[in-house]
Amino acid sequence: MAHQKPLAIVAGAGAGLGQSLLHRFEQGGFAVVGLGRTAPSAPVGEFHTLDLADETAVQGKLAQIIKTHGAPKIVIHNTAELVIAPLGDTTLDDFTRSWTSMVQTAFLLGQATLGPMTTAGGGAFIVSGATASLRGGAKFAAFASAKFALRGLTQSMAREYQSQGVHVCHAILDGIIDTDRSRDLHSLDPAKMMKPADIAEAYWQLVHQPKSTWTHELDLRPASEGF
Amino acid sequence: MAHQKPLAIVAGAGAGLGQSLLHRFEQGGFAVVGLGRTAPSAPVGEFHTLDLADETAVQGKLAQIIKTHGAPKIVIHNTAELVIAPLGDTTLDDFTRSWTSMVQTAFLLGQATLGPMTTAGGGAFIVSGATASLRGGAKFAAFASAKFALRGLTQSMAREYQSQGVHVCHAILDGIIDTDRSRDLHSLDPAKMMKPADIAEAYWQLVHQPKSTWTHELDLRPASEGF
Amino acid sequence: MAHQKPLAIVAGAGAGLGQSLLHRFEQGGFAVVGLGRTAPSAPVGEFHTLDLADETAVQGKLAQIIKTHGAPKIVIHNTAELVIAPLGDTTLDDFTRSWTSMVQTAFLLGQATLGPMTTAGGGAFIVSGATASLRGGAKFAAFASAKFALRGLTQSMAREYQSQGVHVCHAILDGIIDTDRSRDLHSLDPAKMMKPADIAEAYWQLVHQPKSTWTHELDLRPASEGF
Amino acid sequence: MAHQKPLAIVAGAGAGLGQSLLHRFEQGGFAVVGLGRTAPSAPVGEFHTLDLADETAVQGKLAQIIKTHGAPKIVIHNTAELVIAPLGDTTLDDFTRSWTSMVQTAFLLGQATLGPMTTAGGGAFIVSGATASLRGGAKFAAFASAKFALRGLTQSMAREYQSQGVHVCHAILDGIIDTDRSRDLHSLDPAKMMKPADIAEAYWQLVHQPKSTWTHELDLRPASEGF
Repeated sequence: MAHQKPLAIVAGAGAGLGQSLLHRFEQGGFAVVGLGRTAPSAPVGEFHTLDLADETAVQGKLAQIIKTHGAPKIVIHNTAELVIAPLGDTTLDDFTRSWTSMVQTAFLLGQATLGPMTTAGGGAFIVSGATASLRGGAKFAAFASAKFALRGLTQSMAREYQSQGVHVCHAILDGIIDTDRSRDLHSLDPAKMMKPADIAEAYWQLVHQPKSTWTHELDLRPASEGF
Repeated sequence: MAHQKPLAIVAGAGAGLGQSLLHRFEQGGFAVVGLGRTAPSAPVGEFHTLDLADETAVQGKLAQIIKTHGAPKIVIHNTAELVIAPLGDTTLDDFTRSWTSMVQTAFLLGQATLGPMTTAGGGAFIVSGATASLRGGAKFAAFASAKFALRGLTQSMAREYQSQGVHVCHAILDGIIDTDRSRDLHSLDPAKMMKPADIAEAYWQLVHQPKSTWTHELDLRPASEGF
Repeated sequence: MAHQKPLAIVAGAGAGLGQSLLHRFEQGGFAVVGLGRTAPSAPVGEFHTLDLADETAVQGKLAQIIKTHGAPKIVIHNTAELVIAPLGDTTLDDFTRSWTSMVQTAFLLGQATLGPMTTAGGGAFIVSGATASLRGGAKFAAFASAKFALRGLTQSMAREYQSQGVHVCHAILDGIIDTDRSRDLHSLDPAKMMKPADIAEAYWQLVHQPKSTWTHELDLRPASEGF
Repeated sequence: MAHQKPLAIVAGAGAGLGQSLLHRFEQGGFAVVGLGRTAPSAPVGEFHTLDLADETAVQGKLAQIIKTHGAPKIVIHNTAELVIAPLGDTTLDDFTRSWTSMVQTAFLLGQATLGPMTTAGGGAFIVSGATASLRGGAKFAAFASAKFALRGLTQSMAREYQSQGVHVCHAILDGIIDTDRSRDLHSLDPAKMMKPADIAEAYWQLVHQPKSTWTHELDLRPASEGF
C-alpha cells in the first residue's frame, strides 16, 4: 500500500461538524471516509451509510475500509443524540438510545480500529465531548449520563493505547456549533456559535501534536461563552 | 398509613454491602426492602427477586411496594457488575451489561421512586460509586464508562430533585469492600478493606443530614488506601 | 496525663462557625481551645488571641497548649478572609492577605500539630473550604486563588499523614453560613443559609469515621442551593 | 506605533522553556521580551532582569516596555520554584517563596498587562501549570499549594477578561521538560521528556485559536507518561 494517502475516518459525519472535519483532513492530504446513519447531500470523500451501534455492521464495514485503504491514521468519533427532558419525561428508549448512539458506537469504533492502528504504527483517536461530559444538569439525565460514560471510556482507551502509539484525545465542545440546524433551533447570535471549521482546525492540530506533548483533554468554547 | 415505619429500599441487596445497609436501616427503625437478582440465604427484611434492568418489572414491583409501605423515605442504588479486561477482550455483551446493570437500573429506580418521594414530602436517594467513577483506567473501559455514566445521571437527579426535597448523594467507595467474595478474590489484608457496616453507617448519616448541610458527593476509603 | 479529656483545637474561632464547632466538641466531652485574632465576647472553652500567620507565635502557643493538654485529637482550620473585587481593584495587600490568612495559617497549624498527633496515636485535621476551592470566578482572584491553594495543601497533608494515623479532610462549604454578619450583608432568606450547628455536626461525624471509611473531601450545601 | 511588530512577553524566561517560547514567537514575527531574575547567557530578544514578585519593579518595567512596544499581544507566565520535601521539613520560607514566585508574580503580571491588552484590542495570556495543579501529593505541600493557587487565579482571570477579548489559558505540563538541568537531575531517558520547542509550538497554537474555539485548559504530556 505504498504511496497511499493516510486515512482519516469520521464516525458521525452527517451535515455540520462531521463534514467540516472530513473537509479539513482531505485538504491536508488524507483519504477521508465518513460514516453515519444518513448520508449528507454532497458528502466530502467516501461516505458509508451504516448503523454505528450495530456490532456486525461496524466490524464488517471497518474491515472492508481497512482492506481498501490500510489502517486509519486518524479516527474521530463525533456522533450526537441530544435528549433534553426532565427525568420523569425521559423514556427508557430516550435514555438507552443516548447511550447506544454515543457510547456503544465509540466502543465498537475503538475495537475495530485501535488494534489495526497500533499494528500500523500508531495514530490518533479523538472523541467529541460536551459541557455535559463534566456536569450533569437538570433535564440532562440521558445526555449527561452518556457523555460522562463516553469520557470514562475515552480515558480508559488513552491509558491502554497511548503507550502503544495511539494518541487518544477527548475534546470538550462547550458551546453551540454553528450549523443550519442550530440556527433553526437557537436564537443565539451565530457570531457566538462555534464554527465547524475552527473545531476541525483544532482537531487537525491535536492529531499532529508531537509525541513529547500529547493532549488528552482540552475544552473549546467561544470567547463569548460563560463557563 | 399513619404510624407506619418509614421505608428504606436497597436495590442490589445481595450478600455484602446491600445486606449491611438493610440491617443498619432496620436497626434504625425502618421497614426495609431488598431488591436484586438473587436472594441471599437469610435476607434482612423483605426481599424481592427481580431484574432491576427490566422496566416493566421495576415499575410493577415498586408500585406494589409503595402501595404496601407508602413512598420510600430512603432509596439506595448499589448494584455492581465488575468487568476487568483489555478493550480488545471486552465483548459488547460485557460492555452493555456493565451499563445496563449499573446505569439503566439506577434510571429505572429513580423514575419509579423520585416522584412518589417528592409527593410524600422528600427523602434521600444514594448511589454507590467507585474509584472508577472519576478515573478511567486501562482494562476498565466497561466498568469506568458505566460508573462515569452513573455519576452523570446522579448529578442530573440531584439538580432536578433536591429543590423538591429529595437529597441525592453520590458516594465514592474507593477501596475493596470486605466480603466473603473479596477475601476469596484478593490477597489484601482484610484489615485494609472497607467494612460494610462502616459504609452503612456513613450512608445512615448522609440520609439524616439536615437540610442546611446536604452532601452531594463524598469519598470513603480505608486509612491505609493510597489515593 | 491519664484521664484527661481529649483536646479539640479550632483555629479561626471567632463568632459564627468557629464557636459552634467548639461548642459541639465541648458537648461531646472534649477540652476545647479556640484560636484567633479577636476573642468573641463569651468564648466557648479556652480562647487564645494570636496571629495565626505568625510562625513564632503559632509554634509557641501550640507548644504551650500541647504541654498543658497533650497533643490534640482534633484540629480544625477555619480562618476566613473574603475579598471580592475585580482583578484591577484588588490590591497586592488584598491578594497577599487572603493567602496569608487562609493558607499560611493552615501550613503553620499543620506543622505545629500533625507531628505531635501522629506520635500520640493519630486524630483528625479538618480544613474548611468553599465553592471557590473548585472554581475561580470573576472578582474572586484573591479568594479563589487562596482557597485553591488551601485545597492543594490539604491534599498533600492527607497523602503524607493518613498512613500515619491522622485523618485529613477538606469540607467544601457551598453556601452562606448563617451568622449575624451574614444576615447583615446578604438579603438571602436565613432559611436558605447553612446553620453553624449543622456544619459542626457534620465535622463531628467526619472526625469519628472509622478507619475503614475515611472521607477526604465532601461538599455541604443547603437543599435550596443551586450547584 | 504603526508597522510595529506585535509584542510577546515571557515572564520566567531563563534557560529552558522560557527561551524556547521567545524563540518561537520571534520566529513568528513578534518582538519578544523576556523577564526574569537571571539573564541567560545569550537571550533571545530583549531581556530585562527584575524580581517579578516586586510590585514596584513589575509596574515600572511593564509600563516602560508598553511605552516602547505598545501593549503586548501575548503574555506568558512561566516562573518555576520547585520544593519537594515532607511537610515537617518544609520551612515557612520554602512555602512562602513557592507562592510568591509562582502566584504573586502572576497576579502582578496580570494586573500590569491585562488592562492595556483589553484597551489595545485583546490578546492571549497563558499560564504554565503542572501535574501538581490538579493533585497535591506527599512532599508537595509547597509546590502543589502554589500551583493550585495559580490555577484558581488563572480561572478567575479567564472569567473576568475573556469577555473583554483576552484569551486566558492554563496549560498543564505533565512531565519533565528536557533541559540541561533536567538531564542533570533526572535519570529519565530524554526521549521521554517534553521538548521545550514542542511546548512552545503548543502555546503558539493556543494563542492563535480563533474566537469561536478558545481553550481554557489543556494537558500536555509525553506519549510515554502514565497518567
